[in-house]
Amino acid sequence: MADSPNCDLKSLSPLQLFERVTEQGEKVRALKAGKAPKDEIDAAVRMLLSLKLSYKTTTGQDYQAGLPPKDLVLINNGTTKEEDEDLVDPWNVQTSNAKGVDYDKLIVRFGSSKIDTDLINRIERATGQKPHHFLRRGIFFSHRDMDQVLDAYENKKPFYLYTGRGPSSQAMHVGHLIPFMFTKWLQEVFDVPLVIQLTDDEKYLWKDMTVEKAHEYAKENAKDIIACGFDVNKTFIFSDLDYLGTSAGFYKNIVKVQKHVTFNQVKGIFGFTDSDCIGKISFPAIQAAPSFSSSFPQIFNGKDNIQCLIPCAIDQDPYFRMTRDVAPRIGQPKPALLHSVFFPALQGAQTKMSASDPNSSIFLTDTPKQIKTKINKHAFSGGRDTIEEHRKYGGNCDVDVSFMYLTFFLEDDDRLEQLKQAYTSGELLTGELKKVLIETMQPLIAAHQERRKQITDEIVKQFMTPRKLAFEF
Amino acid sequence: MADSPNCDLKSLSPLQLFERVTEQGEKVRALKAGKAPKDEIDAAVRMLLSLKLSYKTTTGQDYQAGLPPKDLVLINNGTTKEEDEDLVDPWNVQTSNAKGVDYDKLIVRFGSSKIDTDLINRIERATGQKPHHFLRRGIFFSHRDMDQVLDAYENKKPFYLYTGRGPSSQAMHVGHLIPFMFTKWLQEVFDVPLVIQLTDDEKYLWKDMTVEKAHEYAKENAKDIIACGFDVNKTFIFSDLDYLGTSAGFYKNIVKVQKHVTFNQVKGIFGFTDSDCIGKISFPAIQAAPSFSSSFPQIFNGKDNIQCLIPCAIDQDPYFRMTRDVAPRIGQPKPALLHSVFFPALQGAQTKMSASDPNSSIFLTDTPKQIKTKINKHAFSGGRDTIEEHRKYGGNCDVDVSFMYLTFFLEDDDRLEQLKQAYTSGELLTGELKKVLIETMQPLIAAHQERRKQITDEIVKQFMTPRKLAFEF
Repeated sequence: MADSPNCDLKSLSPLQLFERVTEQGEKVRALKAGKAPKDEIDAAVRMLLSLKLSYKTTTGQDYQAGLPPKDLVLINNGTTKEEDEDLVDPWNVQTSNAKGVDYDKLIVRFGSSKIDTDLINRIERATGQKPHHFLRRGIFFSHRDMDQVLDAYENKKPFYLYTGRGPSSQAMHVGHLIPFMFTKWLQEVFDVPLVIQLTDDEKYLWKDMTVEKAHEYAKENAKDIIACGFDVNKTFIFSDLDYLGTSAGFYKNIVKVQKHVTFNQVKGIFGFTDSDCIGKISFPAIQAAPSFSSSFPQIFNGKDNIQCLIPCAIDQDPYFRMTRDVAPRIGQPKPALLHSVFFPALQGAQTKMSASDPNSSIFLTDTPKQIKTKINKHAFSGGRDTIEEHRKYGGNCDVDVSFMYLTFFLEDDDRLEQLKQAYTSGELLTGELKKVLIETMQPLIAAHQERRKQITDEIVKQFMTPRKLAFEF
Repeated sequence: MADSPNCDLKSLSPLQLFERVTEQGEKVRALKAGKAPKDEIDAAVRMLLSLKLSYKTTTGQDYQAGLPPKDLVLINNGTTKEEDEDLVDPWNVQTSNAKGVDYDKLIVRFGSSKIDTDLINRIERATGQKPHHFLRRGIFFSHRDMDQVLDAYENKKPFYLYTGRGPSSQAMHVGHLIPFMFTKWLQEVFDVPLVIQLTDDEKYLWKDMTVEKAHEYAKENAKDIIACGFDVNKTFIFSDLDYLGTSAGFYKNIVKVQKHVTFNQVKGIFGFTDSDCIGKISFPAIQAAPSFSSSFPQIFNGKDNIQCLIPCAIDQDPYFRMTRDVAPRIGQPKPALLHSVFFPALQGAQTKMSASDPNSSIFLTDTPKQIKTKINKHAFSGGRDTIEEHRKYGGNCDVDVSFMYLTFFLEDDDRLEQLKQAYTSGELLTGELKKVLIETMQPLIAAHQERRKQITDEIVKQFMTPRKLAFEF
């Protein structure tokens, strides 16, 4: 059964796992060299990716050919010092590691579950669709209760999707698309309602910005979100500043959450201090409330027990840990979650791409020329200092931002694997890898801009009008 | 000019003031004995009350015939020890003094202004109406910026009234009527719009109560408020739980206030702790927001600069001190205030009447028999222990709850003064004074019950529907 990894992978030692990955890599190369049927090669590559995932889970390190595991990071041993920890909360992502945040450690710290091959296969079986490459490549890597969502789905019980965005500036960057691209896929394969929260109130509270400006950004950002291709009959996008004043159910859930969370708790979860404004202190309840279907009586016909599934970047998890803690105490089901990694800044994976630093970001409004210049000038390279050294020792895909971006946006698994091997072996130079990224990003962003142009204010209004969607509850 | 007190009263010494009050008292008695015209007697009584008010302001003591001022309470001398202070906040009113809270000290502590004879006279001139007995008798005793409201009113600039109630139980007691009786008078004499907030969300947050129950109480309490005689064309009553979900302006003002108040501030003002829920911590913004006309776009046509005047009991002042601090920072006018004293518990003025203690309260639902029994059984008496002693030394109106209640509900100034003198002299016994109170309260409550019976759910719905009122803005 080369198609699915063995169930006993978890019992293997790091070294045994290392050997399994190496074997499987050789098998893939042999199949490709022998021009085996595409199906067969695909299956072997999937197996290889699964094994690498298991390797990382067990060792806390990425598999590197020829480098057996050593200096094992013992995760969950309770001895990790705080100063070594990555800083991950809704406002900061910072790590000293050029490979980026250690997501396996994060899973342990946050108490979530790894999205493993079993779960990915189950999603494939349930939906009858090939899992999205964000799942196959570990970009959505962690979850809470996704198995329960699948249990319910398989028993024809409904659920809905909830994701969101804090509209901090007019232009969104490519990293902002990740949760929406994945949410769109989830909505299509499961055929479920979707609500998208634009936290313009949050941005007003946190930034030096008027209420009006925050609300304007929300409507502008809605255009970029809609341009991802959401179905207006199945999707409700709302600005907090608007929806709070038009919903019979939303505020009631907010005040219920607010009654069941103390200042001590939000201090612990979000690091608030006594000098923070009371708006910030109570805001977490506003991000929590859309997790409950009674916040949307117009969609769910007043039903308060529809399961919610939240795809989001892992930095938003603190909000939903809090929400899940409160849910049973206010008689509501806990929302399930799917967590993504961060989208790294051009300068390197030590921090995430941020719209407030134009040089760290490729914006959805960038021209082909700007995209080319930014990637060539700013994308951190894992290549060697000289061509000679690069040819001899090869580049390091683990820290190379261009390669990381390709794992997000280049859908072809084979081509990605080829690029990785060519770059790692030194065959492919940094400039050549960047060229592949530029040629991937330019048409992708141009197409987005083309779709966005079609999004009129009228279409935004349709999406943002509270209404029944194309589902019966 | 016996009609209005001299402007130089403030420069008089306590003893000089004492003599002026005594003189004026004799003058009133002489006029009455000589059967002078009612107008003349009324004017002399008003002057007497003004002088007594000035006496109390200066000395911190009530005028007592034959007892010249001694052991003067030096107010605002900065040496008052905290443990001697009355406890007054939105949830507690407690004093060790049987006469009740020292309101003059409270004015100094809260930094508000005394409602003096000048201001009362000015209200009379502006409205062309005899000042309400709550003003004449110092029941509404303190204000903030009422002079500015009158300036604006005299210049034909509009203002609106805002008051409210926390619907903690189905039955309201007579003390709850005080701000509404006065607000109704203000609305009639100034002819202005009125908004009444029912903080059902607050009650949900503070009490062991469901959202649904709190909302139900709000609608029940609305009936008692409407029964005070408000005009549906000029009055909007709203439940927070409802209105937050139907107003385009309310939440925007709430979040603006929430941005400009820190946890440190609400900790200082309201005594919140780290163990309080985030709902309590952010609630003050919800009580603040109706102070701004943009919270009611349907009434004020979107205008955000209409002056607000808030009649309320002094214990609500902390909310509005906070509001007035925030107002200029969010570009809104500061609300003006008129503060009332507390309505004392039957057991004595050390604490206010509380709906949660049935024995301390006369409810609006009480039968004539219940009213009689409660007053006879529980109303704290300032009379002497034996009839003989009472005849000899007289009763003490300063601590007698029946007499206090009569100052609230017996509109006839002359009769009240007669009762006071007869009780103080020992001519009137406690049982006789209680009988007067019973005979005052029984028809008053019966009439309220009769009016309340007429208030259907449909009428409540009319008052609580967001809509334009009978004013142009």
